[in-house]
Amino acid sequence: MRTVAIAQNILANNDVVAGEIRGRLAARGIRALNMMSSPGAGKTTLLERTIERLRGRVAIGVIEGDLETSADGDRVEAVGAQTVQINTRGTCHLEAHMVRAALDHMALAQMDLLVIENVGNLVCPAGWNLGEDARVVLAATTEGDDKPAKYPGMFAVAEAMVVNKIDLLPYVDYDVEKVRRQALAINPRLRVFELSCRTGEGLDAWCAWLAAFARGAL
Amino acid sequence: MRTVAIAQNILANNDVVAGEIRGRLAARGIRALNMMSSPGAGKTTLLERTIERLRGRVAIGVIEGDLETSADGDRVEAVGAQTVQINTRGTCHLEAHMVRAALDHMALAQMDLLVIENVGNLVCPAGWNLGEDARVVLAATTEGDDKPAKYPGMFAVAEAMVVNKIDLLPYVDYDVEKVRRQALAINPRLRVFELSCRTGEGLDAWCAWLAAFARGAL
Repeated sequence: MRTVAIAQNILANNDVVAGEIRGRLAARGIRALNMMSSPGAGKTTLLERTIERLRGRVAIGVIEGDLETSADGDRVEAVGAQTVQINTRGTCHLEAHMVRAALDHMALAQMDLLVIENVGNLVCPAGWNLGEDARVVLAATTEGDDKPAKYPGMFAVAEAMVVNKIDLLPYVDYDVEKVRRQALAINPRLRVFELSCRTGEGLDAWCAWLAAFARGAL
Repeated sequence: MRTVAIAQNILANNDVVAGEIRGRLAARGIRALNMMSSPGAGKTTLLERTIERLRGRVAIGVIEGDLETSADGDRVEAVGAQTVQINTRGTCHLEAHMVRAALDHMALAQMDLLVIENVGNLVCPAGWNLGEDARVVLAATTEGDDKPAKYPGMFAVAEAMVVNKIDLLPYVDYDVEKVRRQALAINPRLRVFELSCRTGEGLDAWCAWLAAFARGAL
């Protein structure tokens, strides 16, 4: 009798599967971005505003990662992006095999850019390679201005940081320059965007960067 | 030759160590609370305001859990609580052996209530028993009003939920009643507090509950 332990080596195999994903996307000229942040920093709202602004210019496909519910997937689909919702049922981060399974349900021929919205968690997702070309971390002005120093791993692996909810700066104690200094001390190559999805301030610069990234120009 | 794998069984042993902690605290009449939330929901600020308000009535000791820095420990110590800072160096939650090690540095004879502020993470800490008598989860009005539905595990294990930052309700889209309904659907016995650490609104009810908890009346 042969016994197969199906769960073993998932962690060890993650990088292998991520490599497969990277090859599959590269072969079609699709660029991939992994979006990460604390719960509620505004990943889904930023994605909604971004999809609206880049409509007709960049074909965005979205993989939504959540422990439970299809709420975020429904929101993103409603603004016109092809979307697959992953429910991890308790797992605190996305893994490459989940992304691979989601890609099987997507029309890759109609996609320039894949955005993977990770589970809201400022720690664990940083350790899992999903085959992406870049990582962006969101920091919201409502979370306190000590997050890069207290959660350095996430900021170390990112190519870009979005300081979101700047419309709320008058109502909170948050020093954007302090956050910028903390983050750049950890990761000097980090590209920093400050924006508000509510007022639209800063979205042009973010969308210009993302469009260039999708073209492979970054 | 004898080989000892020192890291093995840490997970399996967690509940054993948590049981030791529980016994050690119970023998001295100390009650323990595990505070959990997303990063930046306001655990440390709530702790500062609570320590100030209960000064002279409840002797509070604090264990601060963070990946890095002693920033939160410094803040809590500054308002007069005996404090031990744990830096997990990358681990996304506190484990019982960390709490046990911290207790060795605390004056238990001068403590009525131990508050353990966990690493900011709305997923992983829920799975780790620290020997506490109760768990409280914070949900901030700036995080969006879908968190109990999307992160049900944390709300399922808690005895109390604090909806924090209600002073910011005029500036955000957040339906407190929706959050309350979501949370109570997951966990009908959940005690719900709505408060603002900035204005002080709701802090009396929270502190009264915590003082009763510290006396063993809950």
